[in-house]
Amino acid sequence: MLQGNAIVGQSGGPTSVINASLCGIVQAWQSRAGAGRVLGMRFGIEGFLKGQCIDLGKERPETIEALRTTPSSALGSCRYKLRDADLPGVLEMLRRYGVRYFFLIGGNDTMDTIHRVEAYCRQQGYPLVGIGVPKTVDNDLFGTDHTPGFPSAARYVALSVKQAGMLARDMKYVDQFVVFQTVGRSAGWLAAASALARSAEDDAPHIILCPERPFDRQAFLAEVKQCHERFGWVSVVCGEGICYADGTPVSASTVTDKFANIEFGAMGGASVAMVLHAMIRQQFGWRGEFQVTESLPMCAADRTSPLDVEEAYACGRRAVELAESGQSGIMVSIVRQSNRPYRATLETVPLADVAARAKPMPPEYLDPGRSDVTAAYLEYLRPLVGPLPEYVRLAGIQAEPV
Amino acid sequence: MLQGNAIVGQSGGPTSVINASLCGIVQAWQSRAGAGRVLGMRFGIEGFLKGQCIDLGKERPETIEALRTTPSSALGSCRYKLRDADLPGVLEMLRRYGVRYFFLIGGNDTMDTIHRVEAYCRQQGYPLVGIGVPKTVDNDLFGTDHTPGFPSAARYVALSVKQAGMLARDMKYVDQFVVFQTVGRSAGWLAAASALARSAEDDAPHIILCPERPFDRQAFLAEVKQCHERFGWVSVVCGEGICYADGTPVSASTVTDKFANIEFGAMGGASVAMVLHAMIRQQFGWRGEFQVTESLPMCAADRTSPLDVEEAYACGRRAVELAESGQSGIMVSIVRQSNRPYRATLETVPLADVAARAKPMPPEYLDPGRSDVTAAYLEYLRPLVGPLPEYVRLAGIQAEPV
Repeated sequence: MLQGNAIVGQSGGPTSVINASLCGIVQAWQSRAGAGRVLGMRFGIEGFLKGQCIDLGKERPETIEALRTTPSSALGSCRYKLRDADLPGVLEMLRRYGVRYFFLIGGNDTMDTIHRVEAYCRQQGYPLVGIGVPKTVDNDLFGTDHTPGFPSAARYVALSVKQAGMLARDMKYVDQFVVFQTVGRSAGWLAAASALARSAEDDAPHIILCPERPFDRQAFLAEVKQCHERFGWVSVVCGEGICYADGTPVSASTVTDKFANIEFGAMGGASVAMVLHAMIRQQFGWRGEFQVTESLPMCAADRTSPLDVEEAYACGRRAVELAESGQSGIMVSIVRQSNRPYRATLETVPLADVAARAKPMPPEYLDPGRSDVTAAYLEYLRPLVGPLPEYVRLAGIQAEPV
Repeated sequence: MLQGNAIVGQSGGPTSVINASLCGIVQAWQSRAGAGRVLGMRFGIEGFLKGQCIDLGKERPETIEALRTTPSSALGSCRYKLRDADLPGVLEMLRRYGVRYFFLIGGNDTMDTIHRVEAYCRQQGYPLVGIGVPKTVDNDLFGTDHTPGFPSAARYVALSVKQAGMLARDMKYVDQFVVFQTVGRSAGWLAAASALARSAEDDAPHIILCPERPFDRQAFLAEVKQCHERFGWVSVVCGEGICYADGTPVSASTVTDKFANIEFGAMGGASVAMVLHAMIRQQFGWRGEFQVTESLPMCAADRTSPLDVEEAYACGRRAVELAESGQSGIMVSIVRQSNRPYRATLETVPLADVAARAKPMPPEYLDPGRSDVTAAYLEYLRPLVGPLPEYVRLAGIQAEPV
């Protein structure tokens, strides 16, 4: 039996399916007999602290249902790091709105926020159930097989690299390389997902650079050269956060020679692809292009993985069930039970564990030699992303003269 | 009655639907009783000159059919500017393969190639039928209502700007602006297509910069400021080729201050968005991101406009019909007959006219005051791109305290 009102917030970078989780929470809550109101924080805890609290019960049911396929964060989001000094203000808002259930959809920092708010309220004698729903395209959240939002972003990346690879192959008389940059500051899950683009040996991507591995300029250029010799063109995918062995971000590289004094990192970050582009161009003199999609894979609702939408929604519903059963201080987590066919159950993990740790790619998913992933990673990834479209290639049999 | 063999080539930048035109040509050719072989140039006229000529009759019919939905240029493409000295070599190849029908799918330069090859052959007493099939995402081809490839690329741009705009709106507590760059060196058709993303007044894009209009830094920053005051965030879309009034490309701007000595233009071109990003950041101190998709909209087969696929295919078929009727020295052109409902017919335009002229956006499609398009442009564009997905927005009614 649910006593009091609930509030939901969205936090951190949006995804294509974070609103499906919101939809799941609101619909599950509203289906409970005798449940109180379900409210929403505008722009996460930051807006809430400023008094921005909306009544989700006043939305049309059709609007709530359509959230399932609406990208971005419908409530508005923030990246606010909660300070201890904010806690009394949060509690005051919770009291004012009679909130006894506190749901946030987000990543590490978000789980930390719930954890601290819940602990503070308990300490102040205000009973609050706090439950986290996982979300991040980066897939670096501890305690869950994967994070809702990641499969859809991975599908966007794989699709883009596949299509751009075909284009690069067909244009190799003009351009010799293409560099595609993905988000993911410290984890390479998304960059590595581009490996799904391959069907044939010469398909893109040829080189995948993940932040888990130190970047080595000489080794990289040697790989580029080798791929060019084999295929006549090169496809490189890089995570935005790749660093040299000494920890210097590649995006902060000073490209010397004719591009003297350029500090790409200072420009706003989105520039690793540009550094690698300049590096290849300087070394080999080839023409090529770089693609920086930034947040586009986080909001491409027409390119979602159907499984991802379904799981994001289910995680939202499960949060309400857990609240109803009296549990608190936990995040919903996805536990894979089998791979063929894919089957997963929804379990829980303590917020404190999630908040404290990250989940980089494990070594067994990264090829020990080349800048590539292993078959084990593809096995992990394939059921999440689902099949990509199949495109044909001409056999290209040389014609006989008359 | 078709006498002799045919050859097909693809030229210039790929599109998502250029293979649909190839499919149309091959299928129409093969349906003609008594027609000779249909051959393909690998990598356009450049590969053909090197002897790369394939027999499309040896491809499986399923492969040819699947070209209809396969992006990029299945034959391979080039950007080779045909020299007069190449013409005897081309004629020699045509003789060797018994080619009497010469089909190229491409843009201005491609039409020039067909025109010159056809004229040279006529002069040399070798009868050759030369017919062009239009193609370019830039939509700047003279003599046709629009160019196959453009509607699908326009759909990609509008979708991306729409989705990224929702994200920017929902993240305005974190980032205050987003800059999206499109291809299109001298024509703004694609950048302007982003206007389809809007449903509500505050929807992205807020500012559209087309190469047809000189870029004015002060006016631009004033528009940015105004939009930020109204909406709390700003969405800018820019064509890669925008220039200052004196003709200097904005991409070649030297951004001074802390980014001294940076010449973006020297880096490879794809950088107008970065210059504008730095400009806004320097002026207002806001955080924001820039998105450089480069050729991604040219190959996103999952985001095509169905009308575009159909028209590209039909243009290919029509080229064969025209050849059969004995016409030569022409390009297939699309002539719009009505807008509601959309109806178009396939006509012809002399190659010489297409080769010599470009088609920038006419003044009536560009707002005389703000950096925006007119209703007339949306009227032109809407039937080509088709409907975009509908997403919801919360009413967001402030909750009452308990």
